[in-house]
Amino acid sequence: MRNSSIFAMVTGDLTLVEAELLSVIQTPVQMLADISVHLTKAGGKRLRPALYLLCAKQGLSSSNDKISVAVAIELIHMATLVHDDVIDNAATRRGIATANAQWGNHASVLSGDYLFAKAFSMVAAKGNNEILRILADIISSMCEGEIVQIKESFNPDQSEADYYDRIAKKTADFIAGSARMGAITAGMSAADTQALHDYGYALGMAFQITDDILDFTSSVQQMGKPAGNDLRQGIITLPIIHALRDRTSGQQLREIILRRQMNEADLEQGLSIVHNAGSIEYSYSQVARYLQQAQDVLPRSLNEPVRAALLEMAAFVGKRNY
Amino acid sequence: MRNSSIFAMVTGDLTLVEAELLSVIQTPVQMLADISVHLTKAGGKRLRPALYLLCAKQGLSSSNDKISVAVAIELIHMATLVHDDVIDNAATRRGIATANAQWGNHASVLSGDYLFAKAFSMVAAKGNNEILRILADIISSMCEGEIVQIKESFNPDQSEADYYDRIAKKTADFIAGSARMGAITAGMSAADTQALHDYGYALGMAFQITDDILDFTSSVQQMGKPAGNDLRQGIITLPIIHALRDRTSGQQLREIILRRQMNEADLEQGLSIVHNAGSIEYSYSQVARYLQQAQDVLPRSLNEPVRAALLEMAAFVGKRNY
Repeated sequence: MRNSSIFAMVTGDLTLVEAELLSVIQTPVQMLADISVHLTKAGGKRLRPALYLLCAKQGLSSSNDKISVAVAIELIHMATLVHDDVIDNAATRRGIATANAQWGNHASVLSGDYLFAKAFSMVAAKGNNEILRILADIISSMCEGEIVQIKESFNPDQSEADYYDRIAKKTADFIAGSARMGAITAGMSAADTQALHDYGYALGMAFQITDDILDFTSSVQQMGKPAGNDLRQGIITLPIIHALRDRTSGQQLREIILRRQMNEADLEQGLSIVHNAGSIEYSYSQVARYLQQAQDVLPRSLNEPVRAALLEMAAFVGKRNY
Repeated sequence: MRNSSIFAMVTGDLTLVEAELLSVIQTPVQMLADISVHLTKAGGKRLRPALYLLCAKQGLSSSNDKISVAVAIELIHMATLVHDDVIDNAATRRGIATANAQWGNHASVLSGDYLFAKAFSMVAAKGNNEILRILADIISSMCEGEIVQIKESFNPDQSEADYYDRIAKKTADFIAGSARMGAITAGMSAADTQALHDYGYALGMAFQITDDILDFTSSVQQMGKPAGNDLRQGIITLPIIHALRDRTSGQQLREIILRRQMNEADLEQGLSIVHNAGSIEYSYSQVARYLQQAQDVLPRSLNEPVRAALLEMAAFVGKRNY
């Protein structure tokens, strides 16, 4: 995504973000520096800082402060990823060995904490309290979403609304917050700031549903993890919730989930139930609904290049297969 | 410590801190609320907020802002404790089941992140960037100290200076920062603020060395963990570093450490080497040196009750046996 045309407007800024990321994580403690550099270089789509920078483009704020906020956003994202990998006991992410696999859980938990601290330190240095509060709220929200996910694992009695609540906290609030901070940096009106927040929220919902679909449709090569990983872990995502409603095989899927310890045959059967129930198609229809919502809420005051880029970003989320 | 006479000056403030702690961690996510309440009620000495509040007593700042900072300090301390317990895989702390033992590592990592976020959110709401940066730097420093501790575990070739560097980052910088923030809240001069920082640093060094001594001298009942826990985990503390220098049995201790997997006989032997080499006495002499330093650096401008309380606090650290 970083090299895509969508981000042409912010390519220069994103290059500064990469350089600054590597600079702020410097520490004489070699192991911590190694882990942090690993996390930075493992890359990722830089979706959140890119969205922030795009929204901020609407205004005339100084480049320096913008880069700090974008870096803080990505540091927080990196911190949550390294903690997620510890939580999931994941061996690889995007095909690369995770920090916990290379350096152990202990060092990984601490590295995440360190990245959180660096993020807050950077933004505090710029004296921007509104941004600080949004960042803190984003973290609180993510923790709430992740805890509910743990609590409700292997519980087949979750409604579609429960699912949307959970992924809003886990994912969409962060992406909404990134757009909101961009609007604030750009000095936009309260109404337009809210509109960009709502755009980010809808984009984030579409993004997470797509992620949850890809867990059923992607190969190890594309996602860096085997298909059906969520089902195996008892994470009840939209495709599963839809398939559980299926008259023919919903009950069978329910029994597989309640078994908790799935063998390969259970998992294969679960995957085929989800595929045969039309649950992938249904989930994509919800992605489309959120992406339409994202487009519809864009404020009229946006200048044309920013609007075009935000529309393209929504289109990208609908098409991604990794 | 909370009920001790030392804190008579700040008892009222500490009561507000307790109430506010329970209030800020409120969340509709029940499991997260349960863990946070458990961590708050597990208590602890509240040393850091008490020190902050005592130093702040020198000035006339509004009570409201002070309480927020004190709460943020304790939230950060609680967050690091819950992450430490995950890292150490600890089953109990102060005789009470740890969060990770009750709710699992996953939820515990997330709870720590949540408490960090709440701490930053509180201080950002008050618009105090200097305090925010100090808090962020405290976390970075602790992470560095803890990572070095992991990296250097089972390495008998650590000098006394290495040890002091490590515990400065792990513990003393936080206590120094608490005193510094108090001085800043009180509006003290730069020189006096630095002096209180130095007092906190020396107090913190004495506090951690005492902790490391107690690991050899305390029973399960007093510390909530078996004696020799550090040795077993390969954490090379001051008593061990001193005993490793012993001409008679230093080499034997070295071999035990390098074995890494210690059986009960190894551990017993290691403990007795530390006791027989006079390493406990030596370590207490270093506690005394730091406590003297703490007393010596107190600024002349302090009003008498604050000075008396800070001296009493230093005396307490020298005498504690839990």
